[in-house]
Amino acid sequence: MKPTKTHKCFAGETQFYEHDSDLTKTKMKFAVYKPEKEIRGGLIWLSGLTCNEQNFITKAGAQKILSDLGICLICPDTSPRGLDLAKEHEDYDFGSGAGFYINAETSGYSDHYQMEDYINEEIYTLFNEHINTSKKTSLFGHSMGGHGALTLGLKKPDQYLSLSAFSPITHPTQCQWGEKAFTGYLGDNKDEWKKHDATELIKDGKKHPNPILIDQGLNDEFYPDQLLTEDFEKACQEMGQSLQSSKHKGFDHSYYFISTFVEKHIQFHSEFF
Amino acid sequence: MKPTKTHKCFAGETQFYEHDSDLTKTKMKFAVYKPEKEIRGGLIWLSGLTCNEQNFITKAGAQKILSDLGICLICPDTSPRGLDLAKEHEDYDFGSGAGFYINAETSGYSDHYQMEDYINEEIYTLFNEHINTSKKTSLFGHSMGGHGALTLGLKKPDQYLSLSAFSPITHPTQCQWGEKAFTGYLGDNKDEWKKHDATELIKDGKKHPNPILIDQGLNDEFYPDQLLTEDFEKACQEMGQSLQSSKHKGFDHSYYFISTFVEKHIQFHSEFF
Repeated sequence: MKPTKTHKCFAGETQFYEHDSDLTKTKMKFAVYKPEKEIRGGLIWLSGLTCNEQNFITKAGAQKILSDLGICLICPDTSPRGLDLAKEHEDYDFGSGAGFYINAETSGYSDHYQMEDYINEEIYTLFNEHINTSKKTSLFGHSMGGHGALTLGLKKPDQYLSLSAFSPITHPTQCQWGEKAFTGYLGDNKDEWKKHDATELIKDGKKHPNPILIDQGLNDEFYPDQLLTEDFEKACQEMGQSLQSSKHKGFDHSYYFISTFVEKHIQFHSEFF
Repeated sequence: MKPTKTHKCFAGETQFYEHDSDLTKTKMKFAVYKPEKEIRGGLIWLSGLTCNEQNFITKAGAQKILSDLGICLICPDTSPRGLDLAKEHEDYDFGSGAGFYINAETSGYSDHYQMEDYINEEIYTLFNEHINTSKKTSLFGHSMGGHGALTLGLKKPDQYLSLSAFSPITHPTQCQWGEKAFTGYLGDNKDEWKKHDATELIKDGKKHPNPILIDQGLNDEFYPDQLLTEDFEKACQEMGQSLQSSKHKGFDHSYYFISTFVEKHIQFHSEFF
């Protein structure tokens, strides 16, 4: 596996890759940060709506702390690309750039939008075979990617050592973004939707053995309507899931918020490696 | 003066502005970082070819150290926008996104491309009247913006307290980028060109009272041909200009290089505030 581009950055390398995915049946891109020092753990970053493999690696300012702590990182894309499915390119919150980290069951989409398996199987395997020599892997993400980190991680607590999220969509069956995406990818059966909803998974008894970390800006234009953070907090409290949830005055939904707290999240995961 | 957008970021705000420039006779945009704590000094960042006001503020990861040290920042655009001059949009290295921080004298361009005065007068004044309460201002930049920082700063050592550059174009009269831009903006009189060439300014006796800081990656795709770093080093040595120039194995021309050394540059300027 050879990178298409590498850039030295702090004591390590930012790298870009392209591969043929068996699951999405498309070419897929991802970015990596590989520290020079011995790798103690690996993080999979799941990005939000409209993002691709580049946003986090160029904007979050994570490389310094990753190189200091000996943690590698992989940033997958948020959907298949280069297709032309029905409604795929009409809106920012469905289709291209908006895969929601679920396996689609609807016509057309089910052939390619297999993003849950793509992360759990292809990305996880590539990462641990070629980059993450520690074989310890944790998940974090932002907004739609925060939803991905929480749902994938709650369903596979043995695979993902710890989970954290910035401004996650925590109760997608109850917000507009989630309703639209789940209808498009899963159809109308709302029982199926619940398997991809962090709050519903917790209510259903799913649990992660380590505390979950969430940071949320109080000036976030999507809070609380699309994110419903308090629903997740309540479910965790009722079901005994340990949660460290903080709200921050003045911060919005942007990478300026993520960059401010990224060191906190990487330090959090580092303690479990 | 009101920002068009603000984002809380570390202990301070990333802000975006738009204003009507008297000198370029166009709308111009710039970005700002304003720390919450008392401001000890201000930095003007000059970007490189193809950049606009956003590249540094989104990619360099400078906000943490700026907020820690109480230093504010302004990032102007690299050329006027929204015009349609002859050859303005043909190439990445001339016209739009490539103003070279000089006052154009050629037909059409002389009406708008007044980037040297735009930085020295309009940006400097706006910054010090509205943002930089310390009234202490230093200059730094990258590539074409490194050329801008060195040339503007060497001509105005009383206005700019200290100068630094990442991968600067140091001898533009002797490289392809400079020859093309200077021909386009200044015409064929090569004596005029020398007034906008850092190496020639040093040879001509210009001096800055403080040391100049330069960092250069040795895997930079434009080094040495377009940057000619050694010409500037030799001129500084011969003329007694104090210079701290470092070369770094493996690093290229990208923001991954800038982000690695941005803390060093801000610390450098901080010592003179």
